[in-house]
Amino acid sequence: MKRRMALVLAYDGTDFAGWQRQTNALSIQQVLEETIENLLHEPVHVTASGRTDAGVHAEGQVAALDLEHPIPAERLQAALNSNLPASIRVMDCYEAAPDFQPRYDAKRKTYRYTVFNGEVMPPKYRFTAVREYRKIDWGKVEQCMELLIGEHDFAAFHSTGSSEKTTTRILYEAKSYADPKEPALRHMEFTGNGFLYNMVRILVGTLLDIGCGKRDPKDIELAFQTGNRNLAGPTAPPQGLTLVQVEYEKNRINKEKTVDF
Amino acid sequence: MKRRMALVLAYDGTDFAGWQRQTNALSIQQVLEETIENLLHEPVHVTASGRTDAGVHAEGQVAALDLEHPIPAERLQAALNSNLPASIRVMDCYEAAPDFQPRYDAKRKTYRYTVFNGEVMPPKYRFTAVREYRKIDWGKVEQCMELLIGEHDFAAFHSTGSSEKTTTRILYEAKSYADPKEPALRHMEFTGNGFLYNMVRILVGTLLDIGCGKRDPKDIELAFQTGNRNLAGPTAPPQGLTLVQVEYEKNRINKEKTVDF
Repeated sequence: MKRRMALVLAYDGTDFAGWQRQTNALSIQQVLEETIENLLHEPVHVTASGRTDAGVHAEGQVAALDLEHPIPAERLQAALNSNLPASIRVMDCYEAAPDFQPRYDAKRKTYRYTVFNGEVMPPKYRFTAVREYRKIDWGKVEQCMELLIGEHDFAAFHSTGSSEKTTTRILYEAKSYADPKEPALRHMEFTGNGFLYNMVRILVGTLLDIGCGKRDPKDIELAFQTGNRNLAGPTAPPQGLTLVQVEYEKNRINKEKTVDF
Repeated sequence: MKRRMALVLAYDGTDFAGWQRQTNALSIQQVLEETIENLLHEPVHVTASGRTDAGVHAEGQVAALDLEHPIPAERLQAALNSNLPASIRVMDCYEAAPDFQPRYDAKRKTYRYTVFNGEVMPPKYRFTAVREYRKIDWGKVEQCMELLIGEHDFAAFHSTGSSEKTTTRILYEAKSYADPKEPALRHMEFTGNGFLYNMVRILVGTLLDIGCGKRDPKDIELAFQTGNRNLAGPTAPPQGLTLVQVEYEKNRINKEKTVDF
């Protein structure tokens, strides 16, 4: 009988065409599947808590796969980390419930978006932060992030193309803070029960427009009421985005660190 | 009459064969010289406070060049940042004393070496930190770093090939600390009046050997006394090393932020 395994993945999205398999470009899904197939000599299909776009990073993406091979979780983790490219790491690996589904079982997801809002951006941030040339009032951004918390219809803040039943989501947390080592580096962090396609990047695009005075804070409330995409800002570039964490109920994955809901 | 300009440079050393021009590989010096020559149509020679090896990074390398062209410092900085690859940035630019020499005028230099000493290294650290697989006693490392402070003959802690008059150097500061965001990431920082070739990397190799119990702390004192390279540890890999800052006397470069000695 196959066991369902869960992987917690960190990756640098710079060199990949995103999570999902593509016909003409290298995806994280493809690299993982091929590495596991080469190691264990059985065909596997790896699913994730959600797709990440090209250039988007992960610190705690969660993926699942079914395995015939009896390899223990910790040995699978070590073997994968010896064989994967250095841009992908298995941070954790464990057996999951037989019906565990990383996407549908996810209770909370956290994304972080990073912007460099100073004079000259040090090269080391160039793959993980986006240079914001406009002068941003971060106090204003922080105030607007509080308006986002709660249950809202985020229809105005998503890209079409996704086939969601509802565009209502709950944001549990939304905050902005300066990096402890580099004050010009600002992080914006969002925790919610789920996110629509491009939702974080459009929220960030909107917040930055408000922070520089180009857009009115009232547009957020109006956008919630009307679902009008034109009341939201542009989609911020992918490389500033990181999927930080995905949380599940305890019985879904056999690991102490999962959360009680 | 030519003016002498000073550049404060940050670079990601990953893609370069180090600071110094090579015949068969791309160096930071070559990229800078060619970019300036293309911009200002005059031949330039750029010298630095010291060479950095392939893979070594900089946050505050200081370089100098003589220019016929009357371009103001801040315009040169902006033009360079528009034309250099994203892996090199001019963090600051100003006129220097006509006889300013970034290498010989340097009063203090600071290097940082970063090690990841945890279970699985997140991919984002792979170009700037070195994975240390052994269990390190960081308290012991910190104690040994205190032994390094002061004026010593660092002959045992350098690679031959450099033609220094003396191997005596003063270390003003040497400390180790955990990264504020990632406890498994440890930084080792050294400030001195100058550093011999590979000195920081050999000091780090020695400290890590001591920290895991492979080498005795007394070896440091013995190495100072005897100059015996065998009493020091291996040369730690380049990618963990960053040249953080080079400090000069105030009159050398016309900038408020320079230091009084």
